[in-house]
Amino acid sequence: MILNYKAIMKLIGIIITIMAGLMLPSLLCSYFYNETNVVIAFWFTIIPMLVFGIIITRTVKADFNSLKIRDGYIIAALCWTLSSALGAVPFVISGYIPNYIDAFFETVSGFTTTGASILANVESLPKGLLFWRSFTHWIGGMGIILFAMALLPALGMRGQRIAMAEPAGPTIEKITPKISQSSKILYLIYISITLLEILLLELGGMSTFDAMINTFGSVGTGGYSNYNSSIAHYNNLYFEMVITVSMFLSGINFTLYYFVLRRHWKEFFSDRELRSYLLIVSAAVLLIALNLWFSNCYDSLGESLRYSVFQSVSIATTTGFSTANFDLWPTFSKMILFVLMFIGGCSSSTSSGIKIIRTLIVFKYLKNSISLRLHPRAVISIKINERPVSSDTVSGVINFVFLYIGVFFIGTLLLSLDNFDLITTASAIASCLGNVGPGFNLVGPELNYSIFSNASTLLLSFVMLVGRLELFTIILLFTKQFWNPDR
Amino acid sequence: MILNYKAIMKLIGIIITIMAGLMLPSLLCSYFYNETNVVIAFWFTIIPMLVFGIIITRTVKADFNSLKIRDGYIIAALCWTLSSALGAVPFVISGYIPNYIDAFFETVSGFTTTGASILANVESLPKGLLFWRSFTHWIGGMGIILFAMALLPALGMRGQRIAMAEPAGPTIEKITPKISQSSKILYLIYISITLLEILLLELGGMSTFDAMINTFGSVGTGGYSNYNSSIAHYNNLYFEMVITVSMFLSGINFTLYYFVLRRHWKEFFSDRELRSYLLIVSAAVLLIALNLWFSNCYDSLGESLRYSVFQSVSIATTTGFSTANFDLWPTFSKMILFVLMFIGGCSSSTSSGIKIIRTLIVFKYLKNSISLRLHPRAVISIKINERPVSSDTVSGVINFVFLYIGVFFIGTLLLSLDNFDLITTASAIASCLGNVGPGFNLVGPELNYSIFSNASTLLLSFVMLVGRLELFTIILLFTKQFWNPDR
Repeated sequence: MILNYKAIMKLIGIIITIMAGLMLPSLLCSYFYNETNVVIAFWFTIIPMLVFGIIITRTVKADFNSLKIRDGYIIAALCWTLSSALGAVPFVISGYIPNYIDAFFETVSGFTTTGASILANVESLPKGLLFWRSFTHWIGGMGIILFAMALLPALGMRGQRIAMAEPAGPTIEKITPKISQSSKILYLIYISITLLEILLLELGGMSTFDAMINTFGSVGTGGYSNYNSSIAHYNNLYFEMVITVSMFLSGINFTLYYFVLRRHWKEFFSDRELRSYLLIVSAAVLLIALNLWFSNCYDSLGESLRYSVFQSVSIATTTGFSTANFDLWPTFSKMILFVLMFIGGCSSSTSSGIKIIRTLIVFKYLKNSISLRLHPRAVISIKINERPVSSDTVSGVINFVFLYIGVFFIGTLLLSLDNFDLITTASAIASCLGNVGPGFNLVGPELNYSIFSNASTLLLSFVMLVGRLELFTIILLFTKQFWNPDR
Repeated sequence: MILNYKAIMKLIGIIITIMAGLMLPSLLCSYFYNETNVVIAFWFTIIPMLVFGIIITRTVKADFNSLKIRDGYIIAALCWTLSSALGAVPFVISGYIPNYIDAFFETVSGFTTTGASILANVESLPKGLLFWRSFTHWIGGMGIILFAMALLPALGMRGQRIAMAEPAGPTIEKITPKISQSSKILYLIYISITLLEILLLELGGMSTFDAMINTFGSVGTGGYSNYNSSIAHYNNLYFEMVITVSMFLSGINFTLYYFVLRRHWKEFFSDRELRSYLLIVSAAVLLIALNLWFSNCYDSLGESLRYSVFQSVSIATTTGFSTANFDLWPTFSKMILFVLMFIGGCSSSTSSGIKIIRTLIVFKYLKNSISLRLHPRAVISIKINERPVSSDTVSGVINFVFLYIGVFFIGTLLLSLDNFDLITTASAIASCLGNVGPGFNLVGPELNYSIFSNASTLLLSFVMLVGRLELFTIILLFTKQFWNPDR
């Protein structure tokens, strides 16, 4: 047996039970707003899930200590796929997203903190479903942090470093000794940022419901909004500032917050990835603001800066909120946003994409390789935070970036069978792979993903999962070697 | 002194003299067609070049044996840039391309065998200039083969393998002992293919002039035509077949023709790069033909195949001839052509792009890296033609591909300042970097590069040179280290 089926089965039971529990807040929300058919839809989803979940969990006897690498991959992939498959059910039962494939896309987009939607009119959705839709971002955001920092090492994959999520940055094991304890601290940080943002938005006059929706979207770097025009709906500088700061904080490596908690400011601010993140975002903000100003898109440099700051942070953190229809911006600004979609935020944050640390390592690798052309016998090692990066890590990073670009090209090729223009096609794949949300042209910030065929909707859902689970987790499952016990 | 200025100076003299000589056939052509102002333009270019060239060559005393790696880079870059700068002069003097920057672009595009043009109406050009324009393809094609296989090793860069042009394929040194002798054989093969194609086209009823233009364009994988509609002008299946075969043969590693000359068919057909080349082109042909047929672009599968074969080979070999306005094709077909632009042809051929061998090595590297996820302790080496590829070569290839993608992104970002749509912008850079010629949208096969600003025209010329000289040769010249003697 190449897989520990019993343990996987038991874990499926646990996931189903937890998911049923996580639907309860949305159920309460629909009770609160007297949305009867949504209440029914949730009960029809939650009860069978609870029954099945508890039966499976109770009856299957499994030894979790015997889990191997292969099992870990399957579990990670199943965890996200199953949650999305089940989370999609209330949308279908309530009749608001009748096509199950569309509902699956919408939920994958939620859990992967992408924020791409197939809904043409979000505002017609009942509050219970809007809450659930945005709450999946929040669950997904917390999930990915635990996935990268707690689950994988707990499954014995620490040495393996599957995802190469934090190849050289500070890792949690070095700061706190026990994983269960560190998970708790991570939960607390995540929940604190969440509560703080809700509070700040409410203080500015936002309704509690809207404050929660926008907070889930920003802390999870997801981007689902309850308005068709996203954050532009409010046209409120204070809200934009709060949300920008929250998105930016969510794009930082969460382990760095340990340093903040202990007031080790020097370690915090000297982190190479954080500095590069700041540098990249600032450069984007400045270039876009100048480009918008010189192109007379906005009346003043101040206004240009306002839109540039929000949009750069939103795209760089792979959130996808918008305060402007950036698809109408000049090509140079759009191209910068496009590049930001690829780079993404910091490792071990809720953001996605290639990640700053990997971009940094590739950049240093290239710089060294150019030196080697002139000095073939020189030995130059790559250092991050004054520590050398092992050659295994470097090649892991290179693999990742190549695979990322490969998935982008193959995805674009497959999606192009739907015969929309290349910009729509390529930006849809880039945006879904980077878990951003909006793209350009027909998938621009004021439009949606309903244009695609069912096959393409599934492809895009798959691409979101591939991006969220750091490529290898999903791609491995499609190799012969994975299923061949002899190799 | 970090550079051997005297030797470089003397080489400049030699280049100028040779270039003057290479303009003579075009001069003869304009005499033949009684194009007086073109004759004058050529004399006004050739005479000063001969005078200066001979003076420099005679007066500068230089020791070529003391040439170092740095000198080699400078010489390679100068050779192409200077040839283009001088080759542009007749266009300006004759008044047919009054803007020198445009003329420079047109000539760089010729020598780099790109075939991108700033001319809206090619057919208005006198024959002498049309001949010169296409002849630069032929010179460039021969130049690049010698550059990769004879010049660099002669300059002592054999061990260095600057360009990593033939990282694992058969290399010329292994087959023939002396470089001067091997250069001669290469000349002969190149000239034989040229003469054969001219003959075959004439046998089909093409005029001698047209036959020469089209042959220069295909053997050099350049793509300049003397008609606005390129090869579509003839609408002749026989011509298309001859040109397709010639482009395809020019995209093969020229050293493989040694095997053909010696009738070592087994070695020829078992070459990994050649097989992958066949496979990639065949796959592209088939997919595009089916896509065109299913989209009802053409009446029959036969007709779809006809256009698919020509266009796939033309783009894959980075030639750029067209028999159809492929910009009107469905997105899937366009995306395949876009990917072919990046891959390019075989190493040590006249084609450009990333090259098949590098694509193959990256592909094998990625495949191995996926295996390593499951078997961390396994040692797997990459083999091409049953011989292991050294890790230095693999990392050289990885650098190259990253740099290629980097140049593509940075180039697109800079070009986007002209504010044309992203498809125009990105495809212009991809096409120039891969030395293809046409792109999509505003730089599609029936349009031209005259839309861009002077700064962008220079940028695109630079990108063509960077692509042609295999990135490092040019990029190194822009590093601090290159000009710093202490490092």
